[in-house]
Amino acid sequence: MLKDITRRQFVASALSSAAISSLALSNGSAANAAIAGDLTSSPRQDAAAPGADQFSSWHDQGVLNLAKSPYAKLHSVPVRAVTIETGFWSARRDATVAQSIPTMHDLLESHGRMDNFRRLVGKSNAPQVGAVYSDSDVYKWTEAVAFTLQSGDRPELHKTASDIIDLVVSVQQPNGYLNTYFVGDRAALSMTPETQQSGHELYCLGHMLQGAIAYYRATGDRKWLDAGIRMVNDFLLPSYGPAPKLPIIAGHPEIEMSLVELYRLTGDKRHLDLAGYILGGDARIHVPPQANIYLFCGTPFTERTQIEGHAVRAMYACSGAADYYLETGDPAYWKTLNVLWNSMAGSKMYVTGGLGARAQGESFGAAYDLPNASAYAETCAAIGNVMWNWRLLAATGDAKFTDVLERALYNGVNSGMSLSGTLYCYTNPLAFDPSAGITIRNPWYSTDCCPPNFERTMASLPGYFYSTASDGLYVHLYDNSTLDWHLEDGTGLKVTQKTNMPWDGDVEITVAPAQPTDFTFYLRIPGWAGDGTRVAVNGKPVTGAMAGTYLPIHRHWASGDVIQVRFPITPQPLSANPHVADDEGRVAIQRGPLVYCLEQLDQPTDVDLTDNSLAVRMKPGAEFTSEVREDFLGGIVVLHRDGVVTESHSPASKGGPAALYGPYQDQEANSRNSHTVQLTFIPYYAWANREPSPMEVWTPVAKV
Amino acid sequence: MLKDITRRQFVASALSSAAISSLALSNGSAANAAIAGDLTSSPRQDAAAPGADQFSSWHDQGVLNLAKSPYAKLHSVPVRAVTIETGFWSARRDATVAQSIPTMHDLLESHGRMDNFRRLVGKSNAPQVGAVYSDSDVYKWTEAVAFTLQSGDRPELHKTASDIIDLVVSVQQPNGYLNTYFVGDRAALSMTPETQQSGHELYCLGHMLQGAIAYYRATGDRKWLDAGIRMVNDFLLPSYGPAPKLPIIAGHPEIEMSLVELYRLTGDKRHLDLAGYILGGDARIHVPPQANIYLFCGTPFTERTQIEGHAVRAMYACSGAADYYLETGDPAYWKTLNVLWNSMAGSKMYVTGGLGARAQGESFGAAYDLPNASAYAETCAAIGNVMWNWRLLAATGDAKFTDVLERALYNGVNSGMSLSGTLYCYTNPLAFDPSAGITIRNPWYSTDCCPPNFERTMASLPGYFYSTASDGLYVHLYDNSTLDWHLEDGTGLKVTQKTNMPWDGDVEITVAPAQPTDFTFYLRIPGWAGDGTRVAVNGKPVTGAMAGTYLPIHRHWASGDVIQVRFPITPQPLSANPHVADDEGRVAIQRGPLVYCLEQLDQPTDVDLTDNSLAVRMKPGAEFTSEVREDFLGGIVVLHRDGVVTESHSPASKGGPAALYGPYQDQEANSRNSHTVQLTFIPYYAWANREPSPMEVWTPVAKV
Repeated sequence: MLKDITRRQFVASALSSAAISSLALSNGSAANAAIAGDLTSSPRQDAAAPGADQFSSWHDQGVLNLAKSPYAKLHSVPVRAVTIETGFWSARRDATVAQSIPTMHDLLESHGRMDNFRRLVGKSNAPQVGAVYSDSDVYKWTEAVAFTLQSGDRPELHKTASDIIDLVVSVQQPNGYLNTYFVGDRAALSMTPETQQSGHELYCLGHMLQGAIAYYRATGDRKWLDAGIRMVNDFLLPSYGPAPKLPIIAGHPEIEMSLVELYRLTGDKRHLDLAGYILGGDARIHVPPQANIYLFCGTPFTERTQIEGHAVRAMYACSGAADYYLETGDPAYWKTLNVLWNSMAGSKMYVTGGLGARAQGESFGAAYDLPNASAYAETCAAIGNVMWNWRLLAATGDAKFTDVLERALYNGVNSGMSLSGTLYCYTNPLAFDPSAGITIRNPWYSTDCCPPNFERTMASLPGYFYSTASDGLYVHLYDNSTLDWHLEDGTGLKVTQKTNMPWDGDVEITVAPAQPTDFTFYLRIPGWAGDGTRVAVNGKPVTGAMAGTYLPIHRHWASGDVIQVRFPITPQPLSANPHVADDEGRVAIQRGPLVYCLEQLDQPTDVDLTDNSLAVRMKPGAEFTSEVREDFLGGIVVLHRDGVVTESHSPASKGGPAALYGPYQDQEANSRNSHTVQLTFIPYYAWANREPSPMEVWTPVAKV
Repeated sequence: MLKDITRRQFVASALSSAAISSLALSNGSAANAAIAGDLTSSPRQDAAAPGADQFSSWHDQGVLNLAKSPYAKLHSVPVRAVTIETGFWSARRDATVAQSIPTMHDLLESHGRMDNFRRLVGKSNAPQVGAVYSDSDVYKWTEAVAFTLQSGDRPELHKTASDIIDLVVSVQQPNGYLNTYFVGDRAALSMTPETQQSGHELYCLGHMLQGAIAYYRATGDRKWLDAGIRMVNDFLLPSYGPAPKLPIIAGHPEIEMSLVELYRLTGDKRHLDLAGYILGGDARIHVPPQANIYLFCGTPFTERTQIEGHAVRAMYACSGAADYYLETGDPAYWKTLNVLWNSMAGSKMYVTGGLGARAQGESFGAAYDLPNASAYAETCAAIGNVMWNWRLLAATGDAKFTDVLERALYNGVNSGMSLSGTLYCYTNPLAFDPSAGITIRNPWYSTDCCPPNFERTMASLPGYFYSTASDGLYVHLYDNSTLDWHLEDGTGLKVTQKTNMPWDGDVEITVAPAQPTDFTFYLRIPGWAGDGTRVAVNGKPVTGAMAGTYLPIHRHWASGDVIQVRFPITPQPLSANPHVADDEGRVAIQRGPLVYCLEQLDQPTDVDLTDNSLAVRMKPGAEFTSEVREDFLGGIVVLHRDGVVTESHSPASKGGPAALYGPYQDQEANSRNSHTVQLTFIPYYAWANREPSPMEVWTPVAKV
């Protein structure tokens, strides 16, 4: 760890630059206060949210620290406040911590990502490897460790992360700059207008800040955070921003949300303002129109009218803009955020919560352009979907955002890591045929963004279960867990969930305030629950549960109170909007929050998913049966339902392969040659955990 | 025009290079004979086909000169031998000659494609513009003019082409090299292993040779042809080929077929051998595996097992390989050609004859991966499909190749130029929604390969109507036309077609040999004709017409003999192989050789093609009606049939936009809210000739 004196020398060195000294000095006292003092005691320059002081120590800060955010209706609880106990998510988080994080560490090592840093301080002779954004892989991995440590110390993991952080910090240059790619011969390219579009320098910085903040919140150790602040305060702020400073844009959005989160920690309004400046675009850097769409930068955020371009970039920009709104309440941002959310959730999101229809540019397609087999649906984009909706939920308490968050989390994010914890999806298609030769889960990608992104998301998951508000507590996710926290008035509060969700719908919630007190318990009724949710408190029914809302239960709560909830967890065939051509005449099966799929391996031998002669029987009378299989794919509920296989009606052919086109034969003729089969559906997240096999989410409907 | 003395000086200059002189001299006498003498009197080094001598003068050579090709069963007739009279194809060829060719000339000028040549001889100061393959645009345009001139001189067009050829030839370097891109600073890149993969030098040479040969066959003028031979004989042959020469591959196949055609003209076996060498791959240039697929080069042609990669490259390579087979009879080539053809025609071809499912890499997808809206189906690839099948047809006389040729020609090629003759499709999707903002027909593309490729195909079209064989005449295409040619025994023969094909199925064919003689008239019965074809000679029925074959009519033909044919031109709904997911539950309508489509503009106001609530009614009793509309889209037959519009079953939504996903509603519920509409189909080739409008070829089938 660098000592303060060394750090101050760096600052002095940076300030000695005549070209930037006047700019730097104009904010110098605030900057130095932020660096030198107790971060949380820095004066906030906007009104603090009432009663927020008790959230002010590092170990009380959540995934986002919204305690003082004036436009946050909901406030995060720290990751450590929630313990996920044995159940659905514990299996996934345990696999992340026990398997994914250590094996990914070794892969980052063996692929030279750590040596990129060591080389710069003379500890390695290995050449630079990996693309411009490779530093961010290390940062996201370390952030995942940090979130793990927020749930309790793990000395070995802690030491590994600490050593990596020491290494990272050791390569920081005297002027605050820290990046392993734009050094040496490439230093001249740093922060040029072109590099700002393609070089990912600010993207890497953003991930470093997020990692550093998570590590600080885990340990109280500021060594990495201080390095991040130095790069912002010493390198970035003095030189980049509105004229006469140099122009600044974010070719891959990420810096915006990290700067706002830094502001939440430092109270230094320059951090918020720079985020806002970047979101506003900088006309001095000309971004060509197509790049403007792809990069999701260039155009002022508030001038965008649809979700488009590179899906991860778009999600990160929207997350940053939502963060900016949470601090500023800027109505233009709020309007645009809603327009873009409607564009996404209403026309450009897969039923798995996956985003990005096109491999080309890893990008959104046109409205309703949601092909299944060629879906890109990058794991990082689904994670971005969670991040964005978490912020919109904080701003509003509106359960429609939780519904989307949950859809992405349980399906399009959750599919991103194998049950073993060692293999990852980069893309998450909704139909798959292995005969094309593509391996869908791999231990490593040359662009290895998704695996550590999944890890940090899973490690931080306890922080997403609850929020507080001025009048009570919101519960967002249901799984075996305990909350040990307090209401915003300071009253201690423990909440325990006992449930087998999402496999069945009963949840018993024990509410135990430190002393009896009035507050509202906001119970999320998921959008998939329809009209079937039953709620009782201490055995007495509570009415008003409406799907897609939070049911407010206001009462004088006392220790021993129990909320009994029964959600209708039943298989539900979904249709897509008829504009979605690829889903036409097809259904997707959802059961609770889980989207299901067919994998070839589970079907009878006469069923061929790659042949469209198969359909699921949807006529009245056909029913699903659910089967609990604890020994299968980590323990799941499989679904069975009758399907129909129609004899292949391949056009007649004069020998050779079956003809590609031939006279149409009517349905009646085919239906004479159909037979019933039993189809078996598994949760989408569990696919591709056995040998390669065809898969489909949207299954044709048999209408005969 | 360069004088012979100048040309010989070039040759001498090339031969003076010590490094290559021994190689050059070893074949020098043959080469010089080919250059200096009557080309057609050069001794052929393989057995000449019997009775081929009368085809030997330049004006008697067809699109391909197969007169002496030992493995050609069919032989081309010259373009000039067939006159297309007023009817279906005359309208398209007239638009090509009157509109497309002159306007494309001006666009090639205004986009600097001619100045690229002028600059090199000091006649322009304009910088080089366009990609590495830009020379080929000029060559294909000039080839289109040459084929036009084969049908009769047009002095103004002739002069324009002649001037361009003079310009082209004037930039040829003393060593024979001719390319406007790899000159000056870029000369060092010429023919490096990397440039051979990506630089298109041999691709441009191939197009120059094809253009030069067409111009020679139109005019007897050898000025361009001699330049092409110089580049082959002086630049290429001495230095590139098997060790110890330098390695050679074709990163964009094209040179192979042009070298074989050059061999057919020169009789210089080195030209054939070099084509074979390139087709065999050159292991000394390492082509990475993915590039090997994309480029369709690297792997020996005879080791390929499926059609894949860049569709145009694949078609050109297959055409070259077919040409090589026609000369050599190599059974390994024949086997591979059939494997690849089955792969294409059986699983990777659109119903329009279009090829290339994917925009990424302009490439084939996996087997049965034939998406409609995102179909790439480049016009050039459909043209390549025609070229390849023309060669396979020549090798066999098998009508299955003509069926594919016709499918591509009438649909996927024909759609490539607007009715006006001034706008072009680069991609030819089978479904389209203009709301994505894509303009489907444009006057110019920065990669302007398709427009002049369409022009040269259309200009050469008369050459595709007939072939001769040792025992008679084959008719491939039906349209108003006259053939004025002779049988292979030299007997003069005129054949006249009077028909309204493809709008109705009656064809009256007058057969008039110069004197009564025995031969077989091979009458093509198209694959689409089913069992319904009726044939008579002089009013007397001829039996045995079988769809997808040539009906041999052997008799003692005499002037005044008439063949009356009635093809069953009726609308036919086609199904696709059930493995084609995008066509599942849908039909495409074909009538004769024409594939039809729905354009939004022609439908009732309550029909929305972008909404899947529309289906064509296929239950028994629903019938097509055909309507002749001479004033509409250049004169077409439109088709009408009942369709069904189902009330949109968009998932319910709580305000805001319609929900993207919602509970499935069964078909019976929807069918209560459906109503009948009259759908109007137009030929696919005629789409996108009005304001932008949604279109679809494959229409859902209403089963209720």
